[in-house]
Amino acid sequence: MPRLPFDPIDEAARQWANHWSGVPAMHAVTSLMRVQQLVIGRLDAILKPHGLTFARYEALVLLTFSSRGALPLGKMGERLQVHPTSVTSIVRKLESDGHVVRRPHPEDGRAVLAEITPTGRDVVQAATADLVGADFGLGVLDDDALGRLSELLRPVRRAAGDF
Amino acid sequence: MPRLPFDPIDEAARQWANHWSGVPAMHAVTSLMRVQQLVIGRLDAILKPHGLTFARYEALVLLTFSSRGALPLGKMGERLQVHPTSVTSIVRKLESDGHVVRRPHPEDGRAVLAEITPTGRDVVQAATADLVGADFGLGVLDDDALGRLSELLRPVRRAAGDF
Repeated sequence: MPRLPFDPIDEAARQWANHWSGVPAMHAVTSLMRVQQLVIGRLDAILKPHGLTFARYEALVLLTFSSRGALPLGKMGERLQVHPTSVTSIVRKLESDGHVVRRPHPEDGRAVLAEITPTGRDVVQAATADLVGADFGLGVLDDDALGRLSELLRPVRRAAGDF
Repeated sequence: MPRLPFDPIDEAARQWANHWSGVPAMHAVTSLMRVQQLVIGRLDAILKPHGLTFARYEALVLLTFSSRGALPLGKMGERLQVHPTSVTSIVRKLESDGHVVRRPHPEDGRAVLAEITPTGRDVVQAATADLVGADFGLGVLDDDALGRLSELLRPVRRAAGDF
């Protein structure tokens, strides 16, 4: 993609203002979409050599943090904020790669647990080192700016009912 | 998805800090991914009754802003920052819905123009009214916060070579 001689979102906002209202929201939403696209491209490129996508990486991290290295799939979906069908597909792929095993929940016959394997723990460590080393694709922002970004986005998550 | 009794990203960051560095970047990137997912879900729901996705809507807006209501597909890709194959697929769908017509560029035999139709202009007006009315899914943020969000994201776009 060639580098444009002007900020394309500023230019779109300038034209937008000639036709419609809502310029600050239009600029912010377009910026959000573009930055997410740039960042996910970067993260997926970093994770590809580890055989992971960002969604599968997040699932492994969640299991790493759990006290027994295992969680019911339903709980994983709640914490990762993804739908049950997506959790099932993420866990299936992780299982076929040897990063998790699925087993029946010892106390709840209807529930299935995903448990991280030693291989799974190794891949999380290696992938995390690469992601942290690449500042998650946000290295141009210092810690103060990263904190302000998180705080600006928090009310959107709260208003949507995440917590 | 049930509302969690705590902020799941704060909780992930707390656990992350016990294992690894890069907490501010991890929190910001996870927030960015979640908010983008929430916002695109909202935008696509608003646009669905108009038969549009956000990507197709953006393409129609770009044509609305052009002085002749028509642009070469290559230029559309640059301005929308999407790959040529995506532009082609977006324009094909818009054409089959009657929102654009494709015709040869009058001065460049190798280039194809997409031109917005009166139907296309009507659907942009109606969809824009709905999106602006819904504050693009970011209504919880006031104009000052929206402006700060845009400014925080700008260096990420610039560093990636967008402009």
